[in-house]
Amino acid sequence: MVVMNYDDQAIKKHKELKGKIGLYLKDKLDSQDKLSIYYTPGVAAVSSHVAAHPNEARDYTWINNNVAVISDGSAVLGLGNIGPQGALPVMEGKAMLFKHFADIDAVPIVLNVHTADEIVAAVTAIAPSFGGINLEDIAAPICFEVEDRVKTALKIPVMHDDQHGTAIVVLAGLINAMQVTGKKLENSKIVVVGAGAAGTAIIKLLHAYAKPLMFAVDSKGIISANRTDLNNEKKKLLEYTNKSGIDGSLESILAEGADVFIGVSRAGLLTAKMVKSMDKNPIIFAMANPDPEIMPDVAKNAGAAVIATGRSDFANQVNNALAFPGIFRGALDNRVTKITDEHKVAAAEVIAGLVENPTADKIIPSVLDPRLVPAIATVIR
Amino acid sequence: MVVMNYDDQAIKKHKELKGKIGLYLKDKLDSQDKLSIYYTPGVAAVSSHVAAHPNEARDYTWINNNVAVISDGSAVLGLGNIGPQGALPVMEGKAMLFKHFADIDAVPIVLNVHTADEIVAAVTAIAPSFGGINLEDIAAPICFEVEDRVKTALKIPVMHDDQHGTAIVVLAGLINAMQVTGKKLENSKIVVVGAGAAGTAIIKLLHAYAKPLMFAVDSKGIISANRTDLNNEKKKLLEYTNKSGIDGSLESILAEGADVFIGVSRAGLLTAKMVKSMDKNPIIFAMANPDPEIMPDVAKNAGAAVIATGRSDFANQVNNALAFPGIFRGALDNRVTKITDEHKVAAAEVIAGLVENPTADKIIPSVLDPRLVPAIATVIR
Repeated sequence: MVVMNYDDQAIKKHKELKGKIGLYLKDKLDSQDKLSIYYTPGVAAVSSHVAAHPNEARDYTWINNNVAVISDGSAVLGLGNIGPQGALPVMEGKAMLFKHFADIDAVPIVLNVHTADEIVAAVTAIAPSFGGINLEDIAAPICFEVEDRVKTALKIPVMHDDQHGTAIVVLAGLINAMQVTGKKLENSKIVVVGAGAAGTAIIKLLHAYAKPLMFAVDSKGIISANRTDLNNEKKKLLEYTNKSGIDGSLESILAEGADVFIGVSRAGLLTAKMVKSMDKNPIIFAMANPDPEIMPDVAKNAGAAVIATGRSDFANQVNNALAFPGIFRGALDNRVTKITDEHKVAAAEVIAGLVENPTADKIIPSVLDPRLVPAIATVIR
Repeated sequence: MVVMNYDDQAIKKHKELKGKIGLYLKDKLDSQDKLSIYYTPGVAAVSSHVAAHPNEARDYTWINNNVAVISDGSAVLGLGNIGPQGALPVMEGKAMLFKHFADIDAVPIVLNVHTADEIVAAVTAIAPSFGGINLEDIAAPICFEVEDRVKTALKIPVMHDDQHGTAIVVLAGLINAMQVTGKKLENSKIVVVGAGAAGTAIIKLLHAYAKPLMFAVDSKGIISANRTDLNNEKKKLLEYTNKSGIDGSLESILAEGADVFIGVSRAGLLTAKMVKSMDKNPIIFAMANPDPEIMPDVAKNAGAAVIATGRSDFANQVNNALAFPGIFRGALDNRVTKITDEHKVAAAEVIAGLVENPTADKIIPSVLDPRLVPAIATVIR
């Protein structure tokens, strides 16, 4: 298989355009009257009204349709902690997706601060400028605290997409993978490898949806109460995983009848031998970026019944862009102030439902499916 | 004279448009290839490059052409401290002006924090997202500390427009008013009423330009070293004003041969009698908003030689929009990292020079003059 390399084209196009987004005006400022209506003196009447009725800000300003895409650049794509400047091209790309898929005006904001206190302070300080907040590429475990605190502080929708966007699409894919394999999610044994932002959110959402038997695995092995090296967030995973208190390795737990492997870890982690050791018709979500935990052809030859990855050049791409545009479209349109587990489950069911006849090669709809955003937006209310 | 009231139209249009600005994409995301170039996986090459060379962020992102318009809503137009939501329509209006006049992508950011420490923290935290920062409608005296600290902390152009935009246009107008009246700025006696953001910046810029004899007046009278009620910023004005150590009222100082009255205070403060008490051919800049310190016809009948106000429905409008679009256009184009007094003086001279034959009714060019932005941008380097 030939994998396209887009690096040179990406560098060239970015340098040529010097930024991928810009601002437009909804009306022309082509007369003194327009200046007087949109700026002084007319705008004073609007500002006075909004100051007296802050909840109506969205009726008179672009927060009606905008979202901030905020990152401190501490966990960008597969690149890691590259800082705010490096993160900016990604956040601009995300803004493009927001606009293209959901007609949302998204503003990339990269932060020069990296502690939870500082990030929360910056985000809540600028929050009145926006109708919603998409947190992006903030490293675990700080991302959990930041999201919790920002959600509590604000009355607008806030979502850390690396967590919940991924979790929603994984759940959607699993719903259809269950149909393909005849397994039941509530009876499945699921091993989640990688206990960072995405892994943690996947575990929480699967628990909220079907309470399957789950095990979380990090670089040190199965997360269990016996371990002394766990941070608070990993300790919290014991509420949802490893009820039997098992210790061991990824290899050992897969071999004990695992139905589903969910990887948000690193390339090459999963071997054909491990796949063969799993239960019949194993389901493999190998989502490490840019290279998956196992290549799809290798997994298939080892007996995997359904395989998903994070890549667009394989079948079944787990792509956050399936979820976040519709989630925020719905939240803005329906004036939703908190994105809840119920919203996430509903979105996953909508995404799954758009695949009329799931097969091993088609458990997830195309990100280009025009039904996605309106269908998801309808259930975010 | 009939003064148009734009309140109803402004409310109606704002409600209809639900915001005056939006985002556009510089290229369509209409294929999987485009997604791969502008987002993953291609954007990773761009992000890696920028992370390794942060100074090149502007070659690959929209900070090449964007500016944040930032306010905490503490001193909005003539409305005062109306808070961030109320300020947002004004900041969006300002963003329209940036785009219309200078093709700059300006992002309105309103802040939910109001101490100098918190504002500085928020602005510096989000600064890597922008190519420049226009501080707006932040109350004195906090605005001075905020601007100083933000300028020191950042390597991008920062300007508090209420201070310097106003000061630049006042200087431009005075240069031409001097020509009309045959006075010399360096020999003039100037009384500045209102010692807030604009008044302070006007005094500093006039001093930098010509060191005229100046007096600052606030609601308690002439600012002098004998007063015990002065904050630090007002004390600093004694470096530029009242060298003779006079105490007294606005009325008394105008009657002692004042050539120029500059008002950034409140409606109706200046009477015909006071104008008559001034030196021959007095120059009156009555810029209180929305109603000036004295109406132009009253000032004229009292002998004023040149009259300017802040209003578009009178001759000689002192409008910040004459200055800030060109200032930031030049700063972005020429990679200027600090806006200095030399820049401000140069901009004022350019603005003044665009009026070929100054007369009492024409000391300031129209904000719609298409030569303004390119001419100013050329000298900001």
